[in-house]
Amino acid sequence: VTPDGPIPTRVPETETTARLEALRALLGCEGLDACVFVESSALYYLTGTVASGHLVVPAEGDPVFLVRRDAARAAVEAAVVDVRPFSSLRGLAGVLADVIGRPARRLGFELDVLPARSYLRYRELLDPAAIEDCASLLAGLRRRKSAWELDRLRLAGEQTMLAQRAAVELVTEGATDLSIQIELEHLLRRAGHQGPLRFRGLNGEMHYGTVLTGPDAAVPGYPDAPLSGPGPNRAVGRGPRGFPVMEGVPVTVDLCGGLDGYVSDATRTRWYGELREPFATALPTCRLILGELEAMLTPGTPAQDLYERGLEIAEEAGFGDLWMGHGEGRVRFVGHGIGLEINEQPFLARGVEQPLEAGNVVAVEPKLVFPGEGAVGWENAYAIREQGPAELLTPGD
Amino acid sequence: VTPDGPIPTRVPETETTARLEALRALLGCEGLDACVFVESSALYYLTGTVASGHLVVPAEGDPVFLVRRDAARAAVEAAVVDVRPFSSLRGLAGVLADVIGRPARRLGFELDVLPARSYLRYRELLDPAAIEDCASLLAGLRRRKSAWELDRLRLAGEQTMLAQRAAVELVTEGATDLSIQIELEHLLRRAGHQGPLRFRGLNGEMHYGTVLTGPDAAVPGYPDAPLSGPGPNRAVGRGPRGFPVMEGVPVTVDLCGGLDGYVSDATRTRWYGELREPFATALPTCRLILGELEAMLTPGTPAQDLYERGLEIAEEAGFGDLWMGHGEGRVRFVGHGIGLEINEQPFLARGVEQPLEAGNVVAVEPKLVFPGEGAVGWENAYAIREQGPAELLTPGD
Repeated sequence: VTPDGPIPTRVPETETTARLEALRALLGCEGLDACVFVESSALYYLTGTVASGHLVVPAEGDPVFLVRRDAARAAVEAAVVDVRPFSSLRGLAGVLADVIGRPARRLGFELDVLPARSYLRYRELLDPAAIEDCASLLAGLRRRKSAWELDRLRLAGEQTMLAQRAAVELVTEGATDLSIQIELEHLLRRAGHQGPLRFRGLNGEMHYGTVLTGPDAAVPGYPDAPLSGPGPNRAVGRGPRGFPVMEGVPVTVDLCGGLDGYVSDATRTRWYGELREPFATALPTCRLILGELEAMLTPGTPAQDLYERGLEIAEEAGFGDLWMGHGEGRVRFVGHGIGLEINEQPFLARGVEQPLEAGNVVAVEPKLVFPGEGAVGWENAYAIREQGPAELLTPGD
Repeated sequence: VTPDGPIPTRVPETETTARLEALRALLGCEGLDACVFVESSALYYLTGTVASGHLVVPAEGDPVFLVRRDAARAAVEAAVVDVRPFSSLRGLAGVLADVIGRPARRLGFELDVLPARSYLRYRELLDPAAIEDCASLLAGLRRRKSAWELDRLRLAGEQTMLAQRAAVELVTEGATDLSIQIELEHLLRRAGHQGPLRFRGLNGEMHYGTVLTGPDAAVPGYPDAPLSGPGPNRAVGRGPRGFPVMEGVPVTVDLCGGLDGYVSDATRTRWYGELREPFATALPTCRLILGELEAMLTPGTPAQDLYERGLEIAEEAGFGDLWMGHGEGRVRFVGHGIGLEINEQPFLARGVEQPLEAGNVVAVEPKLVFPGEGAVGWENAYAIREQGPAELLTPGD
C-alpha cells in the first residue's frame, strides 16, 4: 500500500497485546486449550486486521493467525501475531497441536456466528477434540472499552451528531423520511463514515440507522428494535419507504456513525411547525426518562434496572402500553452496548441482572410508539466511568 | 401500513406458490419430511416477506410460517402461506409433527448460514429427527429465474447503468476513488437503490460495489474477489480509502444495483486524459474476453469453461499471470450468479462442471490486475435464454 492515499488508523500493538493476554487468561480459567476465531469483528479486535483466516489463540504459547487471503498483507496489518499462509483445512489439527504443544482436547469457537456446516466440518477435522462455544468469553472482554477504543467511540459520536444537526434543516415540507435518510447517509459518508456496519447474528443488517415519520414509524418491526419501519421494499422490510413529512408530526432520526470499525448510535426527534399531541406530551416524557436513566449509568447498576425504571416512568405518565413499541412489536430493552458491533453487551434488557461496569459503552434509547400515528424517542451513547456520571458521547440537542 | 407512501412491490402469489411447489417436489425426492427456513433471502423468496420466524415447508401438506415478529404484518405480506404467531422454540417439535402429520424423521435446514449454536439447539429440541443440510436444494431452485424475477433484474441493471453513466463525469482531476464511490452511492440511492444488499455467508459484506484506482486497485483482497482494495480503515479492509485519480490511470467502477431484493452487478473502467500502458493494451483484452465469454452463455456450457477460456485468451495476450488477480490474490472464477444475493449459483469457476441453464443470471467480470500499478476490467450481467444469445442486462459502455 503506497502512501498516496490516507493511511488507515492502526490498532496499537499495546491494544492487541493486552486483549490477547486477557483472553488467554480466560482460556486458562475455562480449561480450553485454545480458541479459534474466523469472524471479522473478532479478528479485528484481536489482531487489527480482517484478513480471511483462522486466528488460533492458545491458553499457553503464542497466538498464530493462519491466513487464507492474504498473508503478506495481513502480516503488515497484524503486527503482534505470527501470521502464516494457510490454505488447506486438512492441516488444521496438526497446526493446532503444534501451537498448543499437544493434541487439542477442548477448543473454543464462536458458535453464535459460526455456520453449522463449518462447525460440523471442524468437528470432523479436529476429532476427538471437543468444540465448545467461546463467544461469551470474547463478548465479555469486549464489554469493557480501553482508552483507545473510547477515543474512537467519541469520534464516532461526533460524526453521528454532525448528521443529527444537519437533519434539523432537512425536516421540511416536501421531504419524506426516505429522502432525509438518503441525504444523511451521504453526509455521514462525506464525514468519514466507513460504510458497512456490523450487526451480530443471522439476518443482522444495519445501514446507517433509520429515519421514520408518521404511521410508518409505528409499523411493527421484524428486527428486535422498538422502531423499524416498512422498508423500501419487502425484501429489506425495515427502514423508511418514503412517507411524507407533515407539519407537527415527529420524524425520528436514529443514526449510526461508523469509524475505525467503531459504531455510535443516537436518536433525535425532529418536526416542523408545532408538534401535535400526543407527541408533544410524549417527547418530554422520553427525555425525562433518558435523564433518569443517565443517572443510573454507574458501575454496579443491574442492567435490567434501566429497562424497568423506564417502564415505570412511562406507566406513571400514562404511556405504559406504548413503551418501547406496542403489542407484539414491543421490545424488552431500553438500550444496548456498542463497539465493533451495534448489538454488543451489556444489553439493558429485562432479565439481565449483570451489573454495569466502568468501560461499558451503551446506547440508551427510550421510545414511545403510537400505533397508526407515529413515534417519538431520544437516544444517546454513554461511556460508564469508575467514578462520577457517565460520559455523554453524543452531545447536543 | 397506510397508502400515503409508495406501496412496495408485492411478490406475486403465482411466484411464491410455484416456488413452494417446486421445493416440495424436491423434498419428496430427497426423502426429507420438511425444510425449515430462517434466513431472510430464503424467507423472501418463498413467502414475499422477511418477517422473523420459521418457515416450515413439508414434503406433503401445506407450508406454515411460524412468526416471532410480527405475525399480523407478515400475514398481510405473505399471502400464500398460513402465518401463525410463534414465540417459544420449545413448541417447535409439536408444530412440526402437526404440519407433517407424524413426528419428523428427517428435516432440512440451511446449514451454510444457520449458526452452530442454533443448530445444536434445534437438534436437541427436535431429537430424534435428523437435521440435514438443505441449502443446496433452495440454491438450485434459485438458479433459474422466473419472468417476474428477470423483470426485477432488468430494472436493477438499469439502475446500475444510470450510475455507471454518471461515473464518467466524476472521474476527473482532484477526485479520489472514495469520493467517486460516495457520490455514486448517493446517486444509486436517489435512483431507488434499496440500501442493504445480501452477500451469503459469514463475513459476507457488500456495500454498493467498489470504486478503485491506481495501486490500491491491485491491493490483494481479503474477500474472494479479483479487486478488493485496502478499505477506508482496517476494520472494513475492503473498498477505496481515497486514492487520488491520476491522468491516464484507470478507475475501476464496480457497482451493484439493488431493487425489490434483486441485485445487479456491472464494472466499467474509466479514466481521464490518455490511458497509459499497460492498461491501454489490457483493457481491450478484457473486453475481447468478455465478448468471447458472452457467446458461451448458452444452456449446456459447463460453467468452468468460461473461466478457463478467459484464462486462455489472457495467456495468449501475455497477461496470464494477471488474470483475475495476481499471486495469492487471484481468484479462480470469472463470474457468479446474481439474484437475491450477490453470490448465487452458478459460479463460473474452475471445477464447476455443472452446465448453464436457461434462466440463469450471471455477472461475468474479466479483470486484469497489475501489482503496484492498477487494474482494468469490464463486467456485465446476462440472462441466459433457451434459444439464442444471452440477454444483456447492463447495456451501454
